[in-house]
Amino acid sequence: MYLEKIENVNDVKKIDPQDYPALAQEIRDFLIKKISVTGGHLGSNLGAVELTMALHLALNLPEDKIVWDVGHQAYTHKILSGRKEGFDGLRQYHGMSGFPKRKESECDCFDTGHSSTSISAGLGLVMARDHKGEKNTIVSVIGDGSLTGGMAYEALNNASKLETNFIVILNDNNMSISENVGGVSKYLNNIRTAGGYLDLKEGIYNALLGSNTGNQVIRGIRKLKSSLKTLVIPGMFFEDMGITYLGPVDGHDVKALVDVIHAAQRVEGPVLIHALTKKGKGFLPAEKHPARFHGTEPFDLQTGKPLKQKTEPTYTDVFSSVICSLAEKNENLVAVTAAMPDGTGLKRFRSQFPERFFDVGIAEEHAVTFAAGMAAGGLKPVVAVYSSFLQRAYDQIIHDVCLQNLPVVFAIDRAGLVGSDGETHQGIFDLTYLTGIPNMHVCAPKNKWELSDMLRFAATFDGPMAIRYPRGTAYAGLEEHRAPIVLGKAEWIYREKDVALFALGSMVETAEKVREILKKEGLFVSLINARFVKPVDEEALLEAAKDHSLIVTLEENVATGGYGEKILALANERRLANRFLNVTLPDSYVEHGSVSILKEHLGLDPKSISERILEAWKK
Amino acid sequence: MYLEKIENVNDVKKIDPQDYPALAQEIRDFLIKKISVTGGHLGSNLGAVELTMALHLALNLPEDKIVWDVGHQAYTHKILSGRKEGFDGLRQYHGMSGFPKRKESECDCFDTGHSSTSISAGLGLVMARDHKGEKNTIVSVIGDGSLTGGMAYEALNNASKLETNFIVILNDNNMSISENVGGVSKYLNNIRTAGGYLDLKEGIYNALLGSNTGNQVIRGIRKLKSSLKTLVIPGMFFEDMGITYLGPVDGHDVKALVDVIHAAQRVEGPVLIHALTKKGKGFLPAEKHPARFHGTEPFDLQTGKPLKQKTEPTYTDVFSSVICSLAEKNENLVAVTAAMPDGTGLKRFRSQFPERFFDVGIAEEHAVTFAAGMAAGGLKPVVAVYSSFLQRAYDQIIHDVCLQNLPVVFAIDRAGLVGSDGETHQGIFDLTYLTGIPNMHVCAPKNKWELSDMLRFAATFDGPMAIRYPRGTAYAGLEEHRAPIVLGKAEWIYREKDVALFALGSMVETAEKVREILKKEGLFVSLINARFVKPVDEEALLEAAKDHSLIVTLEENVATGGYGEKILALANERRLANRFLNVTLPDSYVEHGSVSILKEHLGLDPKSISERILEAWKK
Repeated sequence: MYLEKIENVNDVKKIDPQDYPALAQEIRDFLIKKISVTGGHLGSNLGAVELTMALHLALNLPEDKIVWDVGHQAYTHKILSGRKEGFDGLRQYHGMSGFPKRKESECDCFDTGHSSTSISAGLGLVMARDHKGEKNTIVSVIGDGSLTGGMAYEALNNASKLETNFIVILNDNNMSISENVGGVSKYLNNIRTAGGYLDLKEGIYNALLGSNTGNQVIRGIRKLKSSLKTLVIPGMFFEDMGITYLGPVDGHDVKALVDVIHAAQRVEGPVLIHALTKKGKGFLPAEKHPARFHGTEPFDLQTGKPLKQKTEPTYTDVFSSVICSLAEKNENLVAVTAAMPDGTGLKRFRSQFPERFFDVGIAEEHAVTFAAGMAAGGLKPVVAVYSSFLQRAYDQIIHDVCLQNLPVVFAIDRAGLVGSDGETHQGIFDLTYLTGIPNMHVCAPKNKWELSDMLRFAATFDGPMAIRYPRGTAYAGLEEHRAPIVLGKAEWIYREKDVALFALGSMVETAEKVREILKKEGLFVSLINARFVKPVDEEALLEAAKDHSLIVTLEENVATGGYGEKILALANERRLANRFLNVTLPDSYVEHGSVSILKEHLGLDPKSISERILEAWKK
Repeated sequence: MYLEKIENVNDVKKIDPQDYPALAQEIRDFLIKKISVTGGHLGSNLGAVELTMALHLALNLPEDKIVWDVGHQAYTHKILSGRKEGFDGLRQYHGMSGFPKRKESECDCFDTGHSSTSISAGLGLVMARDHKGEKNTIVSVIGDGSLTGGMAYEALNNASKLETNFIVILNDNNMSISENVGGVSKYLNNIRTAGGYLDLKEGIYNALLGSNTGNQVIRGIRKLKSSLKTLVIPGMFFEDMGITYLGPVDGHDVKALVDVIHAAQRVEGPVLIHALTKKGKGFLPAEKHPARFHGTEPFDLQTGKPLKQKTEPTYTDVFSSVICSLAEKNENLVAVTAAMPDGTGLKRFRSQFPERFFDVGIAEEHAVTFAAGMAAGGLKPVVAVYSSFLQRAYDQIIHDVCLQNLPVVFAIDRAGLVGSDGETHQGIFDLTYLTGIPNMHVCAPKNKWELSDMLRFAATFDGPMAIRYPRGTAYAGLEEHRAPIVLGKAEWIYREKDVALFALGSMVETAEKVREILKKEGLFVSLINARFVKPVDEEALLEAAKDHSLIVTLEENVATGGYGEKILALANERRLANRFLNVTLPDSYVEHGSVSILKEHLGLDPKSISERILEAWKK
């Protein structure tokens, strides 16, 4: 009944303060109900309800700006800025994004999706504001998990010398995607347990900050505090950098939050508000299993159980089990994740080999160089990571792994289209950025058995090797085709003439369907499973060139630097006169939606591909 | 006379402790003399003489390991590990590298070149050591400048939970390449000026650390200290993360350093030794002008002045002056550097427009997202950066700049071969990683006037644009060819028939020479200045295809995803039947040496290219 009143941005200001808890409850009920149908990020959103209400109450949107780190916690922000109706189409093709999008609302000031960017972007907006002489408030909201990412620290370091207002809210739920790790987490936890929130209700801070010499007085108090406390001084870590620390404050107390935001607005410099929240708050299954409800499929409202019982294993499941079996045989095999033990499938490895499992936090750069260090020390590290997040460690792959030709295995999950997470999460660049690096080797499996075989191959390979595989159910067809993995060698699946399909990874399954369609049109079609993108199988190409006038490559990657361009370069070198058609993703960002819809839309479905091939054939 | 005794690793241990200062002086004299002839990194090496001596004295190399951050300060390490003779060929082709190289000595345990990687790599080596049950000491040496890079913090955060020994030495000279910036710098500076080194001579720490309960006692003392001090508590920043802090210690006192390293070895956990050093110590010109002597050309021993007076402007000079003239006309133009105001040529901009200049520290990730934030706020940011360092911000270019199609200009210096800095610094991947990104635009100027024109074009262009240009003297030929810059359009320089040379950026000058050679062989050769790699000029290609049977592309980039492959893809789409030859860099890391020697060696010189073209022509 309160939520009904929220139609537009700033409508929340019409709610009587005594009704804030009731509104918060309605928002939670709304989110749980909607996400139980569509799926989406649940835990982080349930944790940020009051914080978001407080921001909308204290600020004047859209003049004031909120930059959400990662952005998966912005659902309440979407509700309060007039996008309630969008939740029925959440994360669906042409529906509302699960992340902030500037094109969706003027209340979204900066697009996000990856971790640890919000302070940098917010500081940029501050500089632009100051340059233009404007006076609006800019707030970056960052989780304690995102704070393990190095660029957040780069940004804090840079922000520290600021002499105008910039508010960073640390949304501290003591979790990243799964439990948080490392020194900063320990430090924040010390503050949490040291007891005693700032007594904001007495308005001491407000009074102080209202006066001209407020900042000085507060600093004086801090010095006094540090001379009395012998254990943990809240926020000295940040104060040491020159950032005013306010907190910790109860992140589920709207009024307290509004007060502290107003107080922070009066500081002429960078301020960090430390808000303590609970991930999944208000939905017991999410409170109990935060990792499972971080991003969830549709679930049963009563039990929290997934509506669709998974029957077929995913590629992640295959990786999860094979990597454990490899570790049993090779005691030098170690595994590294950047805060994704669940998502990457390393959870089982963690419980089976705790001494050989390393969760480094949301810190892909460190993860890769750390792995390089272990490899230089004689271990065999497997870095399990999503394709789009590995972009963060591009320089480390070049500079620390491949330059020294170190035997690090990259198990790259979510390669290709990922679906409902959309633009920031599509893994469509990895072939480009990886295959351009000297000494790197890159392959992709056609089905679940081949992922297993490739992992086994990589486990004994003496050099950097990347295996990319897609999100979702592992293909279980073509079981009988299991030729041994040989470096740089493709696998002939069907050998005919006329048209040769060179398909990579997930596209082998698609190519089978393409082949069936084409055969109905009277074409003879060979199918070659590419396996390796680097090195490319020159022999297979030369063989195919003999009796196939049309050679087609299929891949889930942008064209630049992809598999198709490598085949063209080789064909040019060898002066092959065949006709070539490269089927790739377009040179554009790919929005959210189910993978099958996206593929149709992008012309990567069997029907569209067949049509393109027929057209090329007829010319 | 002491230096003579240093022939092999550990020979330094034969020197009488009272002669350490004399040896240090000899090493300094040696370095100054050698570098004055060959050029190289001077300031950082002069600052690290005693620290390196102490490491070699306290440790047992090569069993113990030292990971040098960046690695340009490892010259004394090279001397003390038996590579004195290598200095005559320092940074020259097939000579000794200016950075640590595993292939050069077993005392070099990890290759470096970029900043902020040493703690990650060192931690990896620690994990490998512990896994194998070995007991050697592993030390990562990192400068305070490198500590502004986020991945150093990711690594510290990850190291904090370690329960075995790992030593990080903070070589704090209060400088990155030029003066240091930001909150951490301020914090370290507070420690420096708070006075009172630890009285290590009394051996308190040694005694304490020798006992079983030593760590506990030390922590107790720290607590006591924090209850007494009201201003700066040395190292609380690190202690807060769970890292034992020892220091500050005089980084030019060998005996004190040896003592503190021995003390640190006894800590069962991560330790940070804070050593205070002076960049350029012992050579007055380097102490006075640290930025100039960071990396220097050959210089006069007496005056410190460069031996070769620069007469022709470099591309950096052209950028430096044009960007200032553009800023005069557009008050929204702002400039960002990651700790390289000198190297990138932004020094002049800094003095002319201090309010619009942002040095964010060695923090390329933050630099790019910060620029994206400023662009989202309505400013026009120019990020001036070296090609190989921009690799660090690949994900931020994808995720923060191009996804939102923000008008950020990337002025990419040191693109292509850079010469004596070698493998880690060659800018040979940027066409690959940039052109694969949707919405990105990429161009390269043929000469100094075109860099100016491209910058002017980019300054008003509404979208992301990268301009890549090489290190060194700007080409001043072809002045009369100055057709206006049009997005995605190439420029015809000579229009003939037979062979068409599509040359990019620096390769236009080379192509002119190639053309002269080929004309002597009786060929008619057209020359097209490519200008844009993204988008590629399709029209120019179709036009050339009409009357040129051989089309040659020339670029200073690896083949994958480069200009040549884009031309091939376009030719395939258009079903052109011409012959194509792509001249690119090979798929391998390129070692150090002068650019001209490297080009000959890699077949990128006019003679080699002409031979390849003639061969292709005759076939």
